[in-house]
Amino acid sequence: MERPVVRVGVIGGGFVGTALVQLLLDPTRHAAIVDGATAPLELVGVAVRDTSKPHPGIEAALLTSDVDGLLSSDLDVLVEVAGGIEPVRTYVETALKLGVSVVTANKALIAESGTELAQLAHVNGADLFYEAAVGGAIPILRALRSSLAGERINRVMGIVNGTTNYILTKMTSEGSDYASALAEAQALGYAEADPSADVEGFDVAAKVQILSTLAFGTRLSGDEVDREGITGIRAVDVEYALRSGYVIKMLGVAERVGDTGVSRRAHPAMVPARHPLASVNGPMNAVFVEGVKSGPLMWLGQGAGGEPTATAVLGDVLDAARNRVSGRHDVPFSGDTSLHYVPAGELSSVFYLSIDVLDRPGVLSDVAGIFGRHDVSIRSMDQSGFGDEARLSFLTHRALSSDVFATVEELKASASVESVGACIRVIDGVFE
Amino acid sequence: MERPVVRVGVIGGGFVGTALVQLLLDPTRHAAIVDGATAPLELVGVAVRDTSKPHPGIEAALLTSDVDGLLSSDLDVLVEVAGGIEPVRTYVETALKLGVSVVTANKALIAESGTELAQLAHVNGADLFYEAAVGGAIPILRALRSSLAGERINRVMGIVNGTTNYILTKMTSEGSDYASALAEAQALGYAEADPSADVEGFDVAAKVQILSTLAFGTRLSGDEVDREGITGIRAVDVEYALRSGYVIKMLGVAERVGDTGVSRRAHPAMVPARHPLASVNGPMNAVFVEGVKSGPLMWLGQGAGGEPTATAVLGDVLDAARNRVSGRHDVPFSGDTSLHYVPAGELSSVFYLSIDVLDRPGVLSDVAGIFGRHDVSIRSMDQSGFGDEARLSFLTHRALSSDVFATVEELKASASVESVGACIRVIDGVFE
Repeated sequence: MERPVVRVGVIGGGFVGTALVQLLLDPTRHAAIVDGATAPLELVGVAVRDTSKPHPGIEAALLTSDVDGLLSSDLDVLVEVAGGIEPVRTYVETALKLGVSVVTANKALIAESGTELAQLAHVNGADLFYEAAVGGAIPILRALRSSLAGERINRVMGIVNGTTNYILTKMTSEGSDYASALAEAQALGYAEADPSADVEGFDVAAKVQILSTLAFGTRLSGDEVDREGITGIRAVDVEYALRSGYVIKMLGVAERVGDTGVSRRAHPAMVPARHPLASVNGPMNAVFVEGVKSGPLMWLGQGAGGEPTATAVLGDVLDAARNRVSGRHDVPFSGDTSLHYVPAGELSSVFYLSIDVLDRPGVLSDVAGIFGRHDVSIRSMDQSGFGDEARLSFLTHRALSSDVFATVEELKASASVESVGACIRVIDGVFE
Repeated sequence: MERPVVRVGVIGGGFVGTALVQLLLDPTRHAAIVDGATAPLELVGVAVRDTSKPHPGIEAALLTSDVDGLLSSDLDVLVEVAGGIEPVRTYVETALKLGVSVVTANKALIAESGTELAQLAHVNGADLFYEAAVGGAIPILRALRSSLAGERINRVMGIVNGTTNYILTKMTSEGSDYASALAEAQALGYAEADPSADVEGFDVAAKVQILSTLAFGTRLSGDEVDREGITGIRAVDVEYALRSGYVIKMLGVAERVGDTGVSRRAHPAMVPARHPLASVNGPMNAVFVEGVKSGPLMWLGQGAGGEPTATAVLGDVLDAARNRVSGRHDVPFSGDTSLHYVPAGELSSVFYLSIDVLDRPGVLSDVAGIFGRHDVSIRSMDQSGFGDEARLSFLTHRALSSDVFATVEELKASASVESVGACIRVIDGVFE
């Protein structure tokens, strides 16, 4: 054993940081931790913005506002749970250049600068781990990295955003409309005052980027992700889904397309009620992985919250500590440039479309003609009237997405159509 | 890098062995494997009982019946996928004494001799990995060993036997009785001609033993597991469960009891329809883990089959290979003797009981009196008559299991009671 202890510094004294400090200082956990890591962890300090503010759960002697001092105090592992891009990217770079391993829960940072940071870690003999960046407590990244390292993965599909899952679960279980479900999520602290990062799919897109790297070896940052949010989903769409044996879920999807392509997408979809993802409700997260040989695998757990996230961070800290003790580091994935990005429009899917039309003769024929001109074949149609308008709900046969998108554009421009509501992909089989 | 290659030998040329060989020889997987393990794997040979028999998928040059020759050919990793206790225990011991790491899918061997084998591996600087022994393709053991190493786990509860899950799913979805569901499972190869290892819960008990070790650090072999099978479950019980919002599942459970106790059990239970385990159907497996800080976590995947099991074995081989390359091995769990076994009778649960009685006055009073004398309080009762008999279905309030077992014994002896059918635990909450 080369070192008597593994020195850990933490940046961030919020929910995750505080929960992590308590895990690190809990004596009942020490046996397991030491046994697993083969060297005791020593918590050196916790950097926070303002040490004069109360930080219940972190003893004052550990608090510091001097990040540079913490970074230069012979750390083995730096934990970054402060969030945001700057200044934490600079802190992380400084640590890695010093050969200090970094554990972060910061999906935005990884999705933006992960490739460069992983390379920086590698050349300096350090680890960069970010398990908590996707799926909170769910140890999905480690599973993709180690257990499934020898497997060929065809698709990773997950519910990886607790805010949108809370809103959609509320709409499904109580028939709420989007606005009131969002307001309730905000009141409970599940959604931000400005919810756009969640409801417009940016958060899911960042996580898809990371999952794609672990599953397919694509670049960790900077690649394209197709993104659609949930703001256009109405109570009638949720109700239609339920009647038809589906539930609407916000999904992140990374999948192979043929031998050389990969699609990365963040969008809502109708999931069959019998699919394992369909019963993942409220703030829970789940990731569904389809391997060629392993068959379908799913991980489920709490996607957010200080303590669940801190357990994922602690798992990374222990991995990094084990590596320090044995004087090695994990080799990061080399970017697989042989896989090219396939835009969502080039993929086929079954779609659900909901259209409000004027209730007069000839309208259905107009609308059906627009579908037909774009080679989108209709599987089923449902009509419900209200006043002098009618709502048409369509399920298509499997169609090229770009054809469906073009259909939507022409429908919007049609004199027969009042408005186009949702246009949502339908996952067809339980294990499709 | 100390060695140019990692030399792998395999014992067993069945479904798993063949699938593993194909994974190891598939050139499209090599980049990922080598990248992960930092040294190429070389398949040295595959020991089978009779090399003259056809082994499609394994080239003849690899086949050998000379296990000792294979063991003494400077292996780094031995994979044991032959099954049974002897002679494979002797082979595994021989390999470990030579310092060769061992990967096995053999839950019976681990549940019987795991403690001794793990110790033997440790003193000889080798690894003993057995991911595929529980949950087939699901990487649950690695998650307990690494991601959750710093977490305090309260309960592990799983559907870990595909045969019983297939039978119970069939009974649930089609109303089949036990005998015809078993016959169909046998016809499809999901159940053995002698199904007792599965339907009497022996297989689940062995897996509970292993899960208990990983979750709580208890001894890997030789500890007690309470065991009840599914042979007494009738179509009426399944139907009652469905009407009441439950499904019946065969569960393996390992849980803490207070600060110093641990309960290990294999038994059927009524699981709420909204519980994530309730929708795990057919030959799928799932393991539900409740950590103090992480909250509930679940893993789902294929519990058996050559290729899914082979991916789990390959994950272990890669772990062992990485360790060989960096000249280290994982330290096995030290047996935690501070946790004592708590017999199932000392635990409380809600129970479902089904009793056939003579349909005459005074019978219900007799039966209720027997419950009362054993301090078992009735939450609800359902009566259905047929001819001069009646069937009474009870849900109890939470009661001491030994009191419920004593109630069953007295009911069986009562003149008012024709027969006692099922006595099944009821899981009360979704995350209970």
